[in-house]
Amino acid sequence: MEKISQYIDQNQDRFLEELFGLIRIPSVSSKSEHKEDMYRAADYIKGALLKAGLDKAEVMKSEGNPVTYGEKIIDPALPTVLVYGHMDVMPAEPFELWDSPPFEPEIRDGKIFARGANDDKGQGFMHIKALEIMTKLNMLTCNVKFMIEGEEEIGSPNLKKFCEEHREMLKADIILVSDTGLIASDIPSITTGLRGLSFMEIEVTGPNKDLHSGLFGGAVANPANVLCNMLASLIDDKGKITIPGFYDDVLEVSEAERKQMAKAPFDLEEYKKALDIKVVAGEEGYTTSERTGIRPSLDINGIWGGYTGEGAKTVLPGKAYAKVSMRLVPHQDNVKISKLFEKHILAIAPETVKVKVKALHGGQGYVSPIDMPAYRAAEQAYNQIYGKMPVPVRSGGSIPIISTFEEVLGVKSILMGFGLEEDAIHSPNESFRLENFIRGIQTIVAFYQYFPKQLNS
Amino acid sequence: MEKISQYIDQNQDRFLEELFGLIRIPSVSSKSEHKEDMYRAADYIKGALLKAGLDKAEVMKSEGNPVTYGEKIIDPALPTVLVYGHMDVMPAEPFELWDSPPFEPEIRDGKIFARGANDDKGQGFMHIKALEIMTKLNMLTCNVKFMIEGEEEIGSPNLKKFCEEHREMLKADIILVSDTGLIASDIPSITTGLRGLSFMEIEVTGPNKDLHSGLFGGAVANPANVLCNMLASLIDDKGKITIPGFYDDVLEVSEAERKQMAKAPFDLEEYKKALDIKVVAGEEGYTTSERTGIRPSLDINGIWGGYTGEGAKTVLPGKAYAKVSMRLVPHQDNVKISKLFEKHILAIAPETVKVKVKALHGGQGYVSPIDMPAYRAAEQAYNQIYGKMPVPVRSGGSIPIISTFEEVLGVKSILMGFGLEEDAIHSPNESFRLENFIRGIQTIVAFYQYFPKQLNS
Repeated sequence: MEKISQYIDQNQDRFLEELFGLIRIPSVSSKSEHKEDMYRAADYIKGALLKAGLDKAEVMKSEGNPVTYGEKIIDPALPTVLVYGHMDVMPAEPFELWDSPPFEPEIRDGKIFARGANDDKGQGFMHIKALEIMTKLNMLTCNVKFMIEGEEEIGSPNLKKFCEEHREMLKADIILVSDTGLIASDIPSITTGLRGLSFMEIEVTGPNKDLHSGLFGGAVANPANVLCNMLASLIDDKGKITIPGFYDDVLEVSEAERKQMAKAPFDLEEYKKALDIKVVAGEEGYTTSERTGIRPSLDINGIWGGYTGEGAKTVLPGKAYAKVSMRLVPHQDNVKISKLFEKHILAIAPETVKVKVKALHGGQGYVSPIDMPAYRAAEQAYNQIYGKMPVPVRSGGSIPIISTFEEVLGVKSILMGFGLEEDAIHSPNESFRLENFIRGIQTIVAFYQYFPKQLNS
Repeated sequence: MEKISQYIDQNQDRFLEELFGLIRIPSVSSKSEHKEDMYRAADYIKGALLKAGLDKAEVMKSEGNPVTYGEKIIDPALPTVLVYGHMDVMPAEPFELWDSPPFEPEIRDGKIFARGANDDKGQGFMHIKALEIMTKLNMLTCNVKFMIEGEEEIGSPNLKKFCEEHREMLKADIILVSDTGLIASDIPSITTGLRGLSFMEIEVTGPNKDLHSGLFGGAVANPANVLCNMLASLIDDKGKITIPGFYDDVLEVSEAERKQMAKAPFDLEEYKKALDIKVVAGEEGYTTSERTGIRPSLDINGIWGGYTGEGAKTVLPGKAYAKVSMRLVPHQDNVKISKLFEKHILAIAPETVKVKVKALHGGQGYVSPIDMPAYRAAEQAYNQIYGKMPVPVRSGGSIPIISTFEEVLGVKSILMGFGLEEDAIHSPNESFRLENFIRGIQTIVAFYQYFPKQLNS
């Protein structure tokens, strides 16, 4: 332990400089103009993995963005850990809300500020540096594989096929992922549940061009008004989603389990204060933690139509659009939900407009067992570094590929995240605490030490 | 008549080149970056008025954009016509939908394509050229004044004060305006009614930053969802606006008058075909013409919030906005309606969000009498040029300043417009038929010939 801390101390500046090199590549997967950047990021990670001690690493083709894969096989008889992460990031817009440029990392108040500082370049890089430490200090006692993909933020549309085509290569006993968070910097936690996701786009077309709202207003259906009407009808006044069949497969959580979950520390006043809101909102009969942990939700992620510039323009827009996502809980199938959504929207669309619905991406939810050896190793690792046993929590977020791993590779995942709510991932001024980066590396190294040398499987 | 047509034939190319010079100045009044262009446009018009034969013309200050004023007083004992028009235009966005650049006029298929080709540079220029013809051919038998302003498209916020300060200068017997349209190119019409306008903007703030829609979705009110809920509630399923007190002052039109209005030619199938819509929509119990002519309406002119780029971004937006306008009918006061709107929105806003409402601009409606000498002169003029008596119609549009003229100057207006529905004013590919430009000039010259040399007032 002493040696590890010493090694980190001596190399911390270099660790950060290496991470910053990755962050500076604007690998935004949802925008086609960044295609080249995806290859630059994949190459950069390949170099970092080889430098950290893998025996081999390569940039592999998928049907979309490339995947960087690498491995170090000490002994085929030993257990194997597969590290999964992603090199792509969310768009940084709106740029004007950033205090420093999103792709030029800056350290302020002990935090790295940049798009990807946490999600997932910062968290992914902890694993590369943990690997470096273990190889340099001769501590590695199992096989390690890395798979870093470039399409997580757009729903990993091609990774399932990639896994199917490389089942043998990806064989492992556990998948280790750092793409989630801690309850608080002094309250360690392990994410044991993730929500599924169904992300849709709606296009409403009224007249064949923008019209003068005076000459036509009141006589021709306005697609923006129609869109608002449809969206408003999707959630009732009890916070329930009105799409027929939406709740059919929802796994209802028992009272006993809800009581157990309620023990996780949560301060509603702090939560509201941090967000600067007077009251929380959501489905009637559930607590805030339950609303994101065990209940599905529906949110407008973007809406646009008509004139949105400065001042007034009396236009009756020809088109209006919305991006809507639904977060799903175990047993809800995202493909089925996307179809129910589309069917419902088309059913409620008035004949005054034309409506198109398309599914942008989606993924299944995931629940992780807490009695497997890898989970116990993770618990011990957090306990060693944080001095407290971690709390199991169900997160409201989605990492759709996790359930695919289980389905295709038959391997469970452990979600050892080190982010904090303050990190503002997906938002302007995304950050990651240096302290969490360092303790993350230490906890990951500790995980390998507690991970059994032999598994009964 | 022969001489007039001959003069137009010989000078048509120059007329157009002069108009194009004005169109090339991007005088967009709603954008502060075009402040300089407003002065360039005002100067350009001053030059054009002097060249056309006015005795004097000047660019005058208002508290906002400049006003170009000019006059030719033949004899103070003769009646005076005051021509009103506007040199400012709507924004041209979205630029990508234009087939040719909006500020580089192009003639295709017998039409001028440009922002302002019709509204109101093209229509306003007809009066300048009519003046030139009358002075060159020695036909002017009354006094003429011109007032061309630069803030019509933002609701003429400073013209009322300008009129109050220059009552004497602006004294006239009738105000002549070409900023409206004809029913069809072979069905002349005179606009006898305009709707009032109340243009509002709503800002909804939820959490203090954009949030991850997975981690927070379902537990925190989404301002885009809240905005849609509020907007959807503003119109009921009968097409009635739900703002308390909204209809209190609406002037109900008698059955007899409605029957009279129903005689105006209107082809619903053509109307739907031109807009590419299957069905029309609006307030129950009224025809399409009535819905825009005698009934108020409410439209979303713009809505935006969250991620609106390519692909998916799972963000729960911190803010959402809408621009909403209401078209008002006689007796509805736009200031009162704006206040009712604000009060109602704040009343229905849930405590989960913060809501701000502001009035962007507005104006009163107007109804023109059809028994005054100027109206009869206009009727005769259309009849001479088009071979048919014009139909009086109530337009759904608004020219808020018209009612202000009556209030401040005590002068009625005649709305002699020559636009067509196909002109797509306020939209991409705005156009104006050359034929309408020419016949407009002829009709205006004819108006002056029928206008009485002596008025009993």
